[in-house]
Amino acid sequence: MSFPVIGVIGGGQLARMMAPAAEALGVGFHVLAESADSSAAQVAGRVTVGDHTDLAALEAFAAEVDVITFDHEHVPPEHLRALQAAGHAVHPGPDALIHAQDKIVMRRRMDTLGLPNPRWAEITSPADLDRFGAEVGFPVVLKTPRGGYDGHGVRVVSSGAEAEEWLAAHPALLAEEKVDFSRELAVMVARSPMGQTAVWPVVATYQQDGVCKEAVAPAPGLDPELARRITADVLTVAGALGVTGVMAMEMFETPDGYRVNELAMRPHNTGHWTQDGSVTSQFEQHLRAVLDLPLGDPSARTAATAMVNVLGADQEDLYRAYFHVLAHDPQAKVHMYGKSVRPGRKLGHVNVSGDNADSVLARARHAADFIAGTDTNPHPDREDTA
Amino acid sequence: MSFPVIGVIGGGQLARMMAPAAEALGVGFHVLAESADSSAAQVAGRVTVGDHTDLAALEAFAAEVDVITFDHEHVPPEHLRALQAAGHAVHPGPDALIHAQDKIVMRRRMDTLGLPNPRWAEITSPADLDRFGAEVGFPVVLKTPRGGYDGHGVRVVSSGAEAEEWLAAHPALLAEEKVDFSRELAVMVARSPMGQTAVWPVVATYQQDGVCKEAVAPAPGLDPELARRITADVLTVAGALGVTGVMAMEMFETPDGYRVNELAMRPHNTGHWTQDGSVTSQFEQHLRAVLDLPLGDPSARTAATAMVNVLGADQEDLYRAYFHVLAHDPQAKVHMYGKSVRPGRKLGHVNVSGDNADSVLARARHAADFIAGTDTNPHPDREDTA
Repeated sequence: MSFPVIGVIGGGQLARMMAPAAEALGVGFHVLAESADSSAAQVAGRVTVGDHTDLAALEAFAAEVDVITFDHEHVPPEHLRALQAAGHAVHPGPDALIHAQDKIVMRRRMDTLGLPNPRWAEITSPADLDRFGAEVGFPVVLKTPRGGYDGHGVRVVSSGAEAEEWLAAHPALLAEEKVDFSRELAVMVARSPMGQTAVWPVVATYQQDGVCKEAVAPAPGLDPELARRITADVLTVAGALGVTGVMAMEMFETPDGYRVNELAMRPHNTGHWTQDGSVTSQFEQHLRAVLDLPLGDPSARTAATAMVNVLGADQEDLYRAYFHVLAHDPQAKVHMYGKSVRPGRKLGHVNVSGDNADSVLARARHAADFIAGTDTNPHPDREDTA
Repeated sequence: MSFPVIGVIGGGQLARMMAPAAEALGVGFHVLAESADSSAAQVAGRVTVGDHTDLAALEAFAAEVDVITFDHEHVPPEHLRALQAAGHAVHPGPDALIHAQDKIVMRRRMDTLGLPNPRWAEITSPADLDRFGAEVGFPVVLKTPRGGYDGHGVRVVSSGAEAEEWLAAHPALLAEEKVDFSRELAVMVARSPMGQTAVWPVVATYQQDGVCKEAVAPAPGLDPELARRITADVLTVAGALGVTGVMAMEMFETPDGYRVNELAMRPHNTGHWTQDGSVTSQFEQHLRAVLDLPLGDPSARTAATAMVNVLGADQEDLYRAYFHVLAHDPQAKVHMYGKSVRPGRKLGHVNVSGDNADSVLARARHAADFIAGTDTNPHPDREDTA
């Protein structure tokens, strides 16, 4: 037995942030990236540029690594089955991953498991949508079952006719009631092939234009009974689906508890706080899980950690902002992705840990927004200088 | 202004562990490595294989990066001066670095600054050494002024005649009294070109066969007055020498305080605990300092952190030990260097943070020694099973 090589399909920021964990564990790290200048390709020890939908490219990549995992969920399930059939270790495997790839499959499985879904329906015609809307009340949320992310593939619609365009391209759509929620929550679990699991504290998240903007860990003021229920439920899901690696369950908090929103089977934006706020980061844990190594302690290091994304705006020169941000808050932990600036694009994030959730959130917000250029007041504590 | 590229000369584990900090800050990271499979070359986004004593190789490397820093202190000072003269940013610069390269220059400067040196003499003949031995008492410690590390270039001698062999190869040697010390201490400081400084807590260290084996932060039971004096002194040294980047000052603790042992102007083994035990790791801080960015908070995250090196022994299969070590202590943070096993070689280290110095040291020792194969008892708390 010697140090194995992990192969990550996809060169985005999630693969990029796995690299330090591989370095520390001393395992090899090889990325199959979309391009030589992708986020992860800039920092990985070994990079192959190739197309994750090309089976030949995947097979050649698989031959070079000991275990395959993912930066994203866009590899066709049939390709993953072919790799497994050829004897390659694929984590998570296609039978688990399909629940993060196909939202209708996921909804059906959540029902089977007794997890709290919003009311939903599979829609194959405008009439289906009209019936569902009449039942739960318009407007409803319409989703393409596959390929959506960060608000793409999601619409709020008020009539069956609004489904026509998508139905021309998709055999079926997912319609969901618009959940009346107080806030969004997320929880991350790691599960190894041997079946060991570890759950991080439940976090509160905030989305902006369909993109994750903030997370606070643990979720401030969360009812301990609800936290226990969510923890038990995410363990049920991870076990029943045979998840390997880390999984995020995004939720809506409701007056009677919560509803499942989405699953992601990879490190997730709502888990970035763990890099600095937990004994074991989601990236290290993911690698430990896919290697079937014993998992690390998912405990929080401090009473509160906030993560705020740097979302692209007008400001092109992000580095210059460091001279303010790092001086203003010597405890702020900046994580940038090596990406060019585009409006709304996730360019990085900032973590701040401390004793008080409001305080760490305000500090992380200031740092992230100042780097992005959307907060131009260098003295956030002094409103009069704004 | 855009994200700069850091160039590190030397492909050892110190450069390797800078890579995650560069990834997080979003700055470029380019290593000039001895070989394509060196410790840092395995994980760096960009690697050039070249000889750090070859000026042409250094010049070509310098042209590709925005700032030059080091994994080791073996680049000839005249080459660094040539790079500076050509307009390249070199941190630390040769005028500072010489104090970590030449132990006689360092001793002279410590005297000038009023730092507590052991008694010492520059030796150019056996008679010089006999005179020094008569003055301070044999045995004395004899050192080659340049090129020593990890116990190499150090001898304990009892007569002038024992200097003859080295004197044939070195124009001068450094003789030092053998300090009667209770334990060894070390302190790390970061200083940026703009002059900002940050000091981590003083640590206690333990050497084994001339190699750093353990460090505990902060040094248990250290007299607060002595800690303050050491902190003030290391700031004096960093400022007077114009250090840029991080510097380690190794010391002997004595009944009346301490004596300076050595200086190192780069991340240092006695600072590895900061990766998990401090808000800002020495590797991140070093990059921030050489980029002249504001420095991060050097505070400890917990009451105690222990670092224990994995020193090579007979065991070849280090990875297999993970299945015990990571299960036994889910809080242990393992850092491996991607090196082949050789007896006594530094192959990695383990950090453990917690409330109690004795406990974290015992845990880190068990993990590191079990990986190395020198501790074969999987139940360290139960002596009866050994």
